[in-house]
Amino acid sequence: MKKQAITIEDVARAASVSRQTVSRVINRMPSVSAKARERVESAIAQLGYSPNLAARRMGGARSFLIMAINDRARTIENWAAGRGNDWVDQMLYGGMMACEARGYHMLFELVDTDQEEAVRQVRRVLSSLQPDGIILTQPHSQNAALVEMLKEQGKPYARIDLPSDNIDGVSIHMNEESAAESATRYLIGLGHERIGFLAGSAEYAGSHFRKDGYLEAMDSAGLEPLLDSADFSFDRAADMARLWLGRQARPTAIIAENDEMAFAVLHVADELGIEVPKHLSVISFEDTPGVRFSVPPLTAIRQPTAAMIARACEILMDAAEGEESNDETVLPFQLIKRETTGPAPR
Amino acid sequence: MKKQAITIEDVARAASVSRQTVSRVINRMPSVSAKARERVESAIAQLGYSPNLAARRMGGARSFLIMAINDRARTIENWAAGRGNDWVDQMLYGGMMACEARGYHMLFELVDTDQEEAVRQVRRVLSSLQPDGIILTQPHSQNAALVEMLKEQGKPYARIDLPSDNIDGVSIHMNEESAAESATRYLIGLGHERIGFLAGSAEYAGSHFRKDGYLEAMDSAGLEPLLDSADFSFDRAADMARLWLGRQARPTAIIAENDEMAFAVLHVADELGIEVPKHLSVISFEDTPGVRFSVPPLTAIRQPTAAMIARACEILMDAAEGEESNDETVLPFQLIKRETTGPAPR
Repeated sequence: MKKQAITIEDVARAASVSRQTVSRVINRMPSVSAKARERVESAIAQLGYSPNLAARRMGGARSFLIMAINDRARTIENWAAGRGNDWVDQMLYGGMMACEARGYHMLFELVDTDQEEAVRQVRRVLSSLQPDGIILTQPHSQNAALVEMLKEQGKPYARIDLPSDNIDGVSIHMNEESAAESATRYLIGLGHERIGFLAGSAEYAGSHFRKDGYLEAMDSAGLEPLLDSADFSFDRAADMARLWLGRQARPTAIIAENDEMAFAVLHVADELGIEVPKHLSVISFEDTPGVRFSVPPLTAIRQPTAAMIARACEILMDAAEGEESNDETVLPFQLIKRETTGPAPR
Repeated sequence: MKKQAITIEDVARAASVSRQTVSRVINRMPSVSAKARERVESAIAQLGYSPNLAARRMGGARSFLIMAINDRARTIENWAAGRGNDWVDQMLYGGMMACEARGYHMLFELVDTDQEEAVRQVRRVLSSLQPDGIILTQPHSQNAALVEMLKEQGKPYARIDLPSDNIDGVSIHMNEESAAESATRYLIGLGHERIGFLAGSAEYAGSHFRKDGYLEAMDSAGLEPLLDSADFSFDRAADMARLWLGRQARPTAIIAENDEMAFAVLHVADELGIEVPKHLSVISFEDTPGVRFSVPPLTAIRQPTAAMIARACEILMDAAEGEESNDETVLPFQLIKRETTGPAPR
């Protein structure tokens, strides 16, 4: 059978429906009865008809692909170590569900960290698969050249990142400041007064907001802050924890900006015979699956990863259908209370 | 700019290369210099040229998409619970790396467990995105109607499953029998004589082979087997473990066919004051990320998930390029020795 000979009219005839109805089924529009849809799909399969993606595009139709890109090296490192990849799992979860609900598909791609190579790679996928929109996660959300290229090509994109002064476009993120403030206030509510904050890295924009949230909560309670950076590293966090916990007036609670630094605090506390949460409360940001298995399981701020990606898909599907969206979407975080937080020791 | 007016000749002219070179870049063939490739890609981007997927297909070219499908309900359940999804992570890892190496892209899709709905869903994706091949994982690898439909459409597919009597096609799997035999022999080598085998379910083809492997190893060492099914369930495995470990001549080692049943054994041992591995050794099949966090970390058989999906991609890319493959590929498993196995107690 010569597949190229089959037209939409052939399908319409075989299914005993109008050309319009075939088009509606192909473009996954609502208002087609289940029966008609079934007949059209059977006819498409039987005749071997291939709705021509490119033709649909040229007629203003869509490819029904939303592409989400993630940092290649970091993603592969986690997969290769068999550690899983919570961020990727939640991206797929939120993205695939949102796309499926409107008849789109999510294409997940790993893109090189190198900024120029990233532009080349994305350009190649744009030209071969013609996705309707692109979701940029860190560090690609901070690649100005990549965003410039997408703007030139008129390709809708959404950044899963804080708004930036020199990179425009839709920004979707959680409220970092409010998350840090809420973790700090929770500890203050438990009677803690000496609360340490193990910051990540000044290079990471979110760290500034989290620091502000912590300082705001401490200040409004009239408490003295205790803050230093451990650069998201286990070893540096362990050194800092040893220093802080070795003091006479040691902190009774520590907030760490990622799980790895929080694990380091638990480790040092164990080493020094300081019981968690009896003598020390610990809260982490991040909440990777491992935190449930730590001893004790960590209280943590959970990012709304799935919800952020789902929202990005919505915005891009809207854009593909000609609708505009707000430039910034802030999604709520969760403070998940597990077993590393308790009343301040007296 | 009217995108439909741009032809491959326009790109060739703008890039000062031959039409052949443009075609090679678009089809990701080797033997194009980095410079020429860069010029062609710039020209494509500048002119807004869209290589016409459908046209490439009709000319015998490929869509460069390999689609891997997974069970929808089970996948979503794990993501929604924030437990991660080791199987999916490893599918993506193996599949994306293999596709990337040859200029293909992997499309990961969730397909309904219901057999008829699965056929409808896959038919829709085939017609809209025209993947070059399909990877079927369980339970879809056992959906005869789905395989029939793929065969009718002449679409290459690979089953990540054991060969089946009534479903043909490429089968990629690990050697289940040899894995069970090797776990059993490892315990025999450690001096164990009473080794229990907590089987999964008779409905799962792999279980038969694993049982055979266990029986073979026990028999050739002249040992009495101790085998029962706990249906992959934590509770049923716990009941069985209580029964076995309550006996006077209790087993000194237990092999469980999945992690959940192995966790149940650890749980019951703790309850009965039986120390692992001093008084009882435990080996699991599966090796999800959680096993590293169990107390103690589990010795386990690890499936070659990433390698199986990578191999399936290879086979399908070969098929897209006109090459045939063997019908069956058996990939090696790993026995990962952690802290739940030790010498038999005297």
